[in-house]
Amino acid sequence: MKVIINGYSGTMGQVLTKCVADDEELELVAGISPKHHDVDGFNTYSSFADVKEDSDVVIDFSNPLALDGILEYCLKTKTPVVLATTGYNDEEMEKIHEAAKQIPVFLSFNMSLGVNILLKLVKEAAKNLANFDIEIIEKHHNKKVDSPSGTAVMIANAVKEIREQSEFIYGRHGRTGKRQQNEVGIHAVRGGTIVGEHSAIFAGNDEILEINHSARSKNVFAEGAIAAAKYLVNQKPGFYNMDDMLG
Amino acid sequence: MKVIINGYSGTMGQVLTKCVADDEELELVAGISPKHHDVDGFNTYSSFADVKEDSDVVIDFSNPLALDGILEYCLKTKTPVVLATTGYNDEEMEKIHEAAKQIPVFLSFNMSLGVNILLKLVKEAAKNLANFDIEIIEKHHNKKVDSPSGTAVMIANAVKEIREQSEFIYGRHGRTGKRQQNEVGIHAVRGGTIVGEHSAIFAGNDEILEINHSARSKNVFAEGAIAAAKYLVNQKPGFYNMDDMLG
Amino acid sequence: MKVIINGYSGTMGQVLTKCVADDEELELVAGISPKHHDVDGFNTYSSFADVKEDSDVVIDFSNPLALDGILEYCLKTKTPVVLATTGYNDEEMEKIHEAAKQIPVFLSFNMSLGVNILLKLVKEAAKNLANFDIEIIEKHHNKKVDSPSGTAVMIANAVKEIREQSEFIYGRHGRTGKRQQNEVGIHAVRGGTIVGEHSAIFAGNDEILEINHSARSKNVFAEGAIAAAKYLVNQKPGFYNMDDMLG
Amino acid sequence: MKVIINGYSGTMGQVLTKCVADDEELELVAGISPKHHDVDGFNTYSSFADVKEDSDVVIDFSNPLALDGILEYCLKTKTPVVLATTGYNDEEMEKIHEAAKQIPVFLSFNMSLGVNILLKLVKEAAKNLANFDIEIIEKHHNKKVDSPSGTAVMIANAVKEIREQSEFIYGRHGRTGKRQQNEVGIHAVRGGTIVGEHSAIFAGNDEILEINHSARSKNVFAEGAIAAAKYLVNQKPGFYNMDDMLG
Repeated sequence: MKVIINGYSGTMGQVLTKCVADDEELELVAGISPKHHDVDGFNTYSSFADVKEDSDVVIDFSNPLALDGILEYCLKTKTPVVLATTGYNDEEMEKIHEAAKQIPVFLSFNMSLGVNILLKLVKEAAKNLANFDIEIIEKHHNKKVDSPSGTAVMIANAVKEIREQSEFIYGRHGRTGKRQQNEVGIHAVRGGTIVGEHSAIFAGNDEILEINHSARSKNVFAEGAIAAAKYLVNQKPGFYNMDDMLG
Repeated sequence: MKVIINGYSGTMGQVLTKCVADDEELELVAGISPKHHDVDGFNTYSSFADVKEDSDVVIDFSNPLALDGILEYCLKTKTPVVLATTGYNDEEMEKIHEAAKQIPVFLSFNMSLGVNILLKLVKEAAKNLANFDIEIIEKHHNKKVDSPSGTAVMIANAVKEIREQSEFIYGRHGRTGKRQQNEVGIHAVRGGTIVGEHSAIFAGNDEILEINHSARSKNVFAEGAIAAAKYLVNQKPGFYNMDDMLG
Repeated sequence: MKVIINGYSGTMGQVLTKCVADDEELELVAGISPKHHDVDGFNTYSSFADVKEDSDVVIDFSNPLALDGILEYCLKTKTPVVLATTGYNDEEMEKIHEAAKQIPVFLSFNMSLGVNILLKLVKEAAKNLANFDIEIIEKHHNKKVDSPSGTAVMIANAVKEIREQSEFIYGRHGRTGKRQQNEVGIHAVRGGTIVGEHSAIFAGNDEILEINHSARSKNVFAEGAIAAAKYLVNQKPGFYNMDDMLG
Repeated sequence: MKVIINGYSGTMGQVLTKCVADDEELELVAGISPKHHDVDGFNTYSSFADVKEDSDVVIDFSNPLALDGILEYCLKTKTPVVLATTGYNDEEMEKIHEAAKQIPVFLSFNMSLGVNILLKLVKEAAKNLANFDIEIIEKHHNKKVDSPSGTAVMIANAVKEIREQSEFIYGRHGRTGKRQQNEVGIHAVRGGTIVGEHSAIFAGNDEILEINHSARSKNVFAEGAIAAAKYLVNQKPGFYNMDDMLG
């Protein structure tokens, strides 16, 4: 299965390049990056317009600015595309859905299989444990500048899908009174080099259910994107996300 | 809603008695126990044959020997019954299923809502995280005589439902070689007064998903039985378990 | 060993009464409470001035208002006293230290042995793991009105004893930039009926050390007070706390 | 500070090489390995006898066979040596102690600072929490062939230093009766790519203290060896281990 990576020279692009190279089913035929440089083993381009290779799937770890070039290539060559990029605006999202009428498109803001299963399980638990209090703890390295993490927000939103009255609380301090039942506490721990950990805590009467995910390297995001790519090449044109893949 | 408790004088029976008393929707009308004694607030009997009260539901926390008396009363009076007793043999199971043709019967070996949700989530995760290794850790107080816990076995069997090749491993020691992919390690920690904790660990490439349950008192089993009773009184005759109730 | 309990009718007083009754070495000879009522097994008084019994030790779980009566009795009868009450003002603290010149006095704001060991271990770790980031998570039931818990503050102060530049951070939210090295994040999780859990997290380069304590019932505070009482009766007059007892 | 690495071409040697290169205080002047090959940035040798460079410290991550060559060089040049190798026999241990009369020698079977602090804290807790039950859980990747881990054994032995009657139990299964007070349960979890996690659990009456360490990469062992090297160069001749360094 031939793969093209858009954004091969970024942090995640480099991790993905290595994971694709280690996967016997995959062959990396080209990489695109505005900061392109020569790399052993595959051709590199500064723009998608220059790419000559055919491929079975394109995987994108870059940023929204690359979208037009990617879609032009994929629509012209009818190539399925996995978008592992965040931050699209409404207009861009519309273009993506428009393209999905002609080719298979996969989009997820967190490519880790484990995190996406956690999201599924959290919804299941939130539905069944109706009067349990829910709190979310995330832990990341001390260089992370924003809090809480995007994934913690995804978990909180998954809770809110089930419990529409949910209100998110960030940090408790002082004499703030009893916890309200619709609170979802979100706590951002920062320290060391932690890659990313997320806990959803369901606390009921004398029992506690916890669902925890710990990413130990960025490989998990690359591997999730590869799994999505393998899934996508067997699909008809359409818009797909992790829920579709996980069934 | 009128409730009769079979086995009111046992450890779980006493906990249940208190939980029923604290529940405004419920009225405890009678208790049965071979070691019966007078109790304030409800009538007690040494045998179900002597019970004069009508009730909406019978809850049983006792042992298989009580089954005949319970079913006779429930079939005669068309009363739904929640069986929270373990250790039935095949003949007894047949009687239970036979009774379920005429009255609603609910049976579960672990009445905690949280544990039953954990079982659901474990199956979901085992299905989706196909190449993750699964290990189970349970923790109980230092007086527990058997290991692993019945609930740990329920978790292991839930895994085996999804992964039929699973082989259970109890304790590793020595130079035993690499872990086989179909191993399910089961570990029994004993210490202090721990009521009951269960962890299902899914370890993949650089990511770990964990589902943990901690029971902090025996109330959780009583509350689960009460939830089952409330569910059962609205059902048609039939055989029900936690999966039916949790949907 | 004869024990008098001041505050026997409060929540902790009742727990302590039971724990003293269960301890073969101890004999409960009297209880004092302004809301006094008759209790089987020991004499009760509304004021310490009325107490006729001798005792080997007084244990106090009440409030600062009771201090004068307690000290008057203890000084007159040369009885050691364990103070498990919080909220003393400076004047009261002075009276306590004054009394400690004549009788053994034990004071601790958290009587759990485990929590006090955790405090010791946290200081040890903070000293040795100099460039590890420290964060504290505490979890309590959803009825608790203040946050963070007094014990979380004790842990944070223990860190500050070792790392004097420490600055406490309560809840991170938004684009707040990288973590500062002297930050000590403190996070208050609220849910269900959790009695009290405290985690101190030391996150370094690719390694994490965690020290966790979980109280599963209020008994741990009563048992700690009893241990303090047994320790105290063998001491000379003076002011003692958990550090003295734990050595 | 000039460093020589013995065993530079092994897994840990390569990790150490990178960590030394990243440390501004250190300069890597030579590497020794029987499978030696040319490496950019420092001279390599197949035998210590050929080394021409002076150095301030030698760090060894190899195997006992290299000991003679290392000691010969270090004794001749009066160079301190950090031995991060396991499996020495009695005769080799004697040579090491003999050398320590003339030069500073540092030896530890686990170079992670965090693990060594955990060992310290475990001893402290085992002493103070006299009637708490102790259990140890370790988790490693699914390729590890032996169990339990050497570090889990170090923890168990640390417990036994304090509680001499301790008996180690590996895996519980069946109707084995109540836990004995002197049992130390040791549990080996295997799964995925886990680098190494160790938990010491102290379970008492209604309270639990846990000390956990998680290594997230092999860097922690290299960094520990570097810290030992920096400590060692300021010491007089003698035999040192982590306890000396941590004070």
